[in-house]
Amino acid sequence: MALSGLFTPCARIMAHRALCRGLALTASSALDIRGIYPPITTPFTNQEEVDYEKLEENLQNYNHIPFRGFVVQGSNGEYAYLTSEERVEVVRRVRKAVPTNRLVIAGSGCESTQATIRMTEEMAKFGADAVLVVTPAYYRGRMTSTALIHHYSKQSHGDFSPLYASGSAQQSKSASSFCHDQVADCSPVPVVLYSVPGNTGLDIPVDAIVTLSQHQNIIGIKDSGGDVTRIGLIIHKTKRQGFQVLSGSASFLLAGYSIGAVGGICALANVLGAQLCALESMCLNDQWEEAKELQHRLIEPNAAVTRRFGVPGVKQVMEWYGYHGGPCRSPLLPLTDEEIKELKKAFTANGWL
Amino acid sequence: MALSGLFTPCARIMAHRALCRGLALTASSALDIRGIYPPITTPFTNQEEVDYEKLEENLQNYNHIPFRGFVVQGSNGEYAYLTSEERVEVVRRVRKAVPTNRLVIAGSGCESTQATIRMTEEMAKFGADAVLVVTPAYYRGRMTSTALIHHYSKQSHGDFSPLYASGSAQQSKSASSFCHDQVADCSPVPVVLYSVPGNTGLDIPVDAIVTLSQHQNIIGIKDSGGDVTRIGLIIHKTKRQGFQVLSGSASFLLAGYSIGAVGGICALANVLGAQLCALESMCLNDQWEEAKELQHRLIEPNAAVTRRFGVPGVKQVMEWYGYHGGPCRSPLLPLTDEEIKELKKAFTANGWL
Amino acid sequence: MALSGLFTPCARIMAHRALCRGLALTASSALDIRGIYPPITTPFTNQEEVDYEKLEENLQNYNHIPFRGFVVQGSNGEYAYLTSEERVEVVRRVRKAVPTNRLVIAGSGCESTQATIRMTEEMAKFGADAVLVVTPAYYRGRMTSTALIHHYSKQSHGDFSPLYASGSAQQSKSASSFCHDQVADCSPVPVVLYSVPGNTGLDIPVDAIVTLSQHQNIIGIKDSGGDVTRIGLIIHKTKRQGFQVLSGSASFLLAGYSIGAVGGICALANVLGAQLCALESMCLNDQWEEAKELQHRLIEPNAAVTRRFGVPGVKQVMEWYGYHGGPCRSPLLPLTDEEIKELKKAFTANGWL
Amino acid sequence: MALSGLFTPCARIMAHRALCRGLALTASSALDIRGIYPPITTPFTNQEEVDYEKLEENLQNYNHIPFRGFVVQGSNGEYAYLTSEERVEVVRRVRKAVPTNRLVIAGSGCESTQATIRMTEEMAKFGADAVLVVTPAYYRGRMTSTALIHHYSKQSHGDFSPLYASGSAQQSKSASSFCHDQVADCSPVPVVLYSVPGNTGLDIPVDAIVTLSQHQNIIGIKDSGGDVTRIGLIIHKTKRQGFQVLSGSASFLLAGYSIGAVGGICALANVLGAQLCALESMCLNDQWEEAKELQHRLIEPNAAVTRRFGVPGVKQVMEWYGYHGGPCRSPLLPLTDEEIKELKKAFTANGWL
Repeated sequence: MALSGLFTPCARIMAHRALCRGLALTASSALDIRGIYPPITTPFTNQEEVDYEKLEENLQNYNHIPFRGFVVQGSNGEYAYLTSEERVEVVRRVRKAVPTNRLVIAGSGCESTQATIRMTEEMAKFGADAVLVVTPAYYRGRMTSTALIHHYSKQSHGDFSPLYASGSAQQSKSASSFCHDQVADCSPVPVVLYSVPGNTGLDIPVDAIVTLSQHQNIIGIKDSGGDVTRIGLIIHKTKRQGFQVLSGSASFLLAGYSIGAVGGICALANVLGAQLCALESMCLNDQWEEAKELQHRLIEPNAAVTRRFGVPGVKQVMEWYGYHGGPCRSPLLPLTDEEIKELKKAFTANGWL
Repeated sequence: MALSGLFTPCARIMAHRALCRGLALTASSALDIRGIYPPITTPFTNQEEVDYEKLEENLQNYNHIPFRGFVVQGSNGEYAYLTSEERVEVVRRVRKAVPTNRLVIAGSGCESTQATIRMTEEMAKFGADAVLVVTPAYYRGRMTSTALIHHYSKQSHGDFSPLYASGSAQQSKSASSFCHDQVADCSPVPVVLYSVPGNTGLDIPVDAIVTLSQHQNIIGIKDSGGDVTRIGLIIHKTKRQGFQVLSGSASFLLAGYSIGAVGGICALANVLGAQLCALESMCLNDQWEEAKELQHRLIEPNAAVTRRFGVPGVKQVMEWYGYHGGPCRSPLLPLTDEEIKELKKAFTANGWL
Repeated sequence: MALSGLFTPCARIMAHRALCRGLALTASSALDIRGIYPPITTPFTNQEEVDYEKLEENLQNYNHIPFRGFVVQGSNGEYAYLTSEERVEVVRRVRKAVPTNRLVIAGSGCESTQATIRMTEEMAKFGADAVLVVTPAYYRGRMTSTALIHHYSKQSHGDFSPLYASGSAQQSKSASSFCHDQVADCSPVPVVLYSVPGNTGLDIPVDAIVTLSQHQNIIGIKDSGGDVTRIGLIIHKTKRQGFQVLSGSASFLLAGYSIGAVGGICALANVLGAQLCALESMCLNDQWEEAKELQHRLIEPNAAVTRRFGVPGVKQVMEWYGYHGGPCRSPLLPLTDEEIKELKKAFTANGWL
Repeated sequence: MALSGLFTPCARIMAHRALCRGLALTASSALDIRGIYPPITTPFTNQEEVDYEKLEENLQNYNHIPFRGFVVQGSNGEYAYLTSEERVEVVRRVRKAVPTNRLVIAGSGCESTQATIRMTEEMAKFGADAVLVVTPAYYRGRMTSTALIHHYSKQSHGDFSPLYASGSAQQSKSASSFCHDQVADCSPVPVVLYSVPGNTGLDIPVDAIVTLSQHQNIIGIKDSGGDVTRIGLIIHKTKRQGFQVLSGSASFLLAGYSIGAVGGICALANVLGAQLCALESMCLNDQWEEAKELQHRLIEPNAAVTRRFGVPGVKQVMEWYGYHGGPCRSPLLPLTDEEIKELKKAFTANGWL
């Protein structure tokens, strides 16, 4: 995935980098991303064109829900099916439609480092408060810890000393490695890592996360794998960096909080957003018993809109809840009648419809 | 795995069944198995014979730890390497060595239903309070929900009506299906299901668990898979049966409690038993913050004695803690020096050694 | 991945479709693709720009090898890291550099159907003789047989009657389903399916392949999975359609021929092309004993440049053989010294270096 | 799995070992195992007792088929469900029922090394010509190359020098490591390794196979994984040892021969034995075209009696072909009517019923 030829990449990057080196590595780590986010869907017309009006209407309908913000172009946004221009335009529209006190976290990941850098810059330019950068995965056999670290950062394992933040060592290094700034080095906004093995077939290894957590411009991770042991370990080993871990699915939101996660980016928030915010509130206020009861009732609906039926499932349920769901882009097919029945049952059986 | 020809199976079973039908299906569901259990290891001499003295000494050394009981011949007991006679004898010895207020839960699973029934009866005869019955797995391609349900119970999906407990329908059915009682129908003591995909490559499907939870003599499950979403769903869907779920590993003990599990059978309890009991206590007393801190420090040691180094790892650490670890049976090899160093680091880095 | 905004998609597609309906569905099935192909790599400068001169030099160096043709932008071409413009331009350059009696098969797959259609058209316009269309995979949980069939063809399972080729039923259907032509319906050149589970985590199910083999514009498949049972079954079940199966790796080239495959698209052909053509010749001339000896010596080198070291491995060995290998695009890293040593050993140990 | 207490293990082993050291390590490598074998099933009565009469009748019915011999207690023999006594008795009966010019290869693998040694000795005593020893797998996380090598042989990687066969170095080593002879060191008959990942979840790594191929008493392997690349590599790297590789399934029998395998142990041979022997003959006589046509028609029936329906599938088809199939032991269930229909179709659609 790559931006069009509308601008000459290299000159732009060079200019921007000169700039961003000053910006990116300073105050960004302060961004607090705690809370609940829906990874919003992208509505399409029947001709499979992006329907920006419906997108904006959905956002207005989410206004009364105490979300911390919105994730644009997570997997639920069908980002893999959008052109580069569409990806940027969707971010621009969302930023304009959403109140400034809500964060917009934009999925800017592409397969190549270069394309990811450009997409990150574009999305930041159009108002993303942070970017969510999925692991590249096509050549997953070579996506070792070293390669993944290198995608996000020019630093390597050994480089992250306790003195990292001091700046001077940092700069002298930058000088000697011209044109090798990587995604997080160069991003004008903070970077959130994104590990979604269900789609990518790849987990960022914990050691790579720990290394990357020491980068000033990498502030957290969305982990969709659902392995709370792993999530607990990440939190344990990045404690000193104030690294923020967000659960990537509603099914382990409670367990995530219990182990130290600070929020969640959950497909289910597209339709049961208020309930997920309620669950967050219970967890933060030590109402674990109530939280447990609520969590239990969310597991089946969540499975239905993720593993079982994916984006077409989310969009179908959105229709039931008064949002604009609509069709997906091909090759994603709409659900069959049989599937819709099964989907509905997952909600009715738990008292949600 | 099967008992020797010391007794003629069929007559015995028939006699016993006549008896157990009265016993097994009455009060057993009352057995409360909440709490922490070590799945104890089996010490061997250098000639790989079972060392019963060391086994008993280990049990005495565990006396001051507030365990709910002991699991004999979980995977950590190397049950797969014991003869049928040894399996029964180990249970007999443990029962004698352990105070009566501690439960002895014995792993009686074999590949065939017939062998499992016999082993269950023998272990019950020698004092097991309950049996832990692992899923048969060699022909895992055919171990469907239906086959697994049938291994444990002669009832099928449809048979479990809300009126199940009433007894009369039950009996008329039994009468017509002579000699087809299955493991839980016939066990003189309550049955705990055991799902350990790391060893068996097989997860009992949730729907099979829900069906089996309605059997009066099946009181719970040890789930070692570590998927808290699944565990939450099991708890949610078996709520009415009072089905008891035990976490099968220390790494997700806190998360398990947060979602409704009632205890844990944890390899790590062989060496950090007091700490796991402390964690249990924190969870039960709503000290979630302290629990979280403690849980974090247990993840790496736990990984080291399970996924990473298995039973030889547990036995090595037992030596450091003053218990009898000793060699495993072949083909399990002792750890190399390099592995021992890595193992030690997992404990020292978290303040345990 | 998508083409830039340089043209307005919908009008173009409509116009083209009117045209291609006449073209595409006639004689294209006659294209004979039997033979050996290297999936060529894309050389980059040190600044990671495509180096078209080196690309052309490589092609000239391949001139003396009796390849049937060249695959441009298979996985080895790092197509996932190229912009849409680069993808098309590489095809254009290759077509110009390669004698007309050699086929150019261009990888035109994108995640969305729409983008794949456009890319296919562009590549055909610039001279591709056929396109190789990888399965979309990001939402692999929803990429069922039905969805995959629908990506390639507007026909569904039931539609492919024995009378399919007659044309009239076909046209009346087209008329009623405006704007739903899919990749193969609309491609101006024949389509070769591409199943590469190592990269996509997805195998096209055999039933979907059988259905698609009945489409007049789908002439074969490159199967990189290496399961000869599956390959044999595909050949068996598509016999009547004259469907052509190409082995996707050199490691099972002999076995593929023995079971009915008609050629291979093999990463190893980038460096041991003459040897693979010799192996082809032995298989076609019933010299199975010699073929076996040669095949044996190719397994380790092949593993080294595929599963083990991937594209950076291929490019490294190209350097040893006098071709232009050079760097990969980030995040693919160059091999370490240790890896290079291991790579070399795979070739020397088998007498190739 | 272990033998009963009918004999005192240690004394017996010691005595036997003194004996076998002379026997086992001499001429056994000469055993030629080329050819086709059915891994025979074990018939049971309706009460799930072994039905020895029917077993013998099946063997008589196989008499006219030019099998090289019979494999007793491969996975299809439900060995995992037999007691130790039954396992030995079945071997004894088969040996008596089968002409002496047919080989009897007996599956003697157990989880522990000790139990495997005893079972091997018993089966050899009752007439097995060779033993087939499956990889232990319950603790598969620890079943490294080193552990697997150690299960079969007291030698380690480094010990196998080119001079290995000389004997003297061998003996001095044995003297110093009392009581550590492993399965192949001590077996009175040649050992065939058995890798069946579908049941065990474990593949013996190629490097372990290469090391073990140098053991004088390890003469071959049955590989059921179906990866012909791996099979080719094994053959390539054990060429000098005259190591014999048998394909573990009929679906890749032709491909196996093409790459150098010398035969097959195939579930399908229980019902289409003559056809598999015909396929063997075609491959050995360079009738590759005919072989291909025949192989194609065997893939679906083979899948039906292995991956799809397993042992209950084989037994069902045996009934159709006039052999005694009958029930499996629980928990293996008989096929449903629906499954039987699907099974039948796999045979009729390919012209076999």
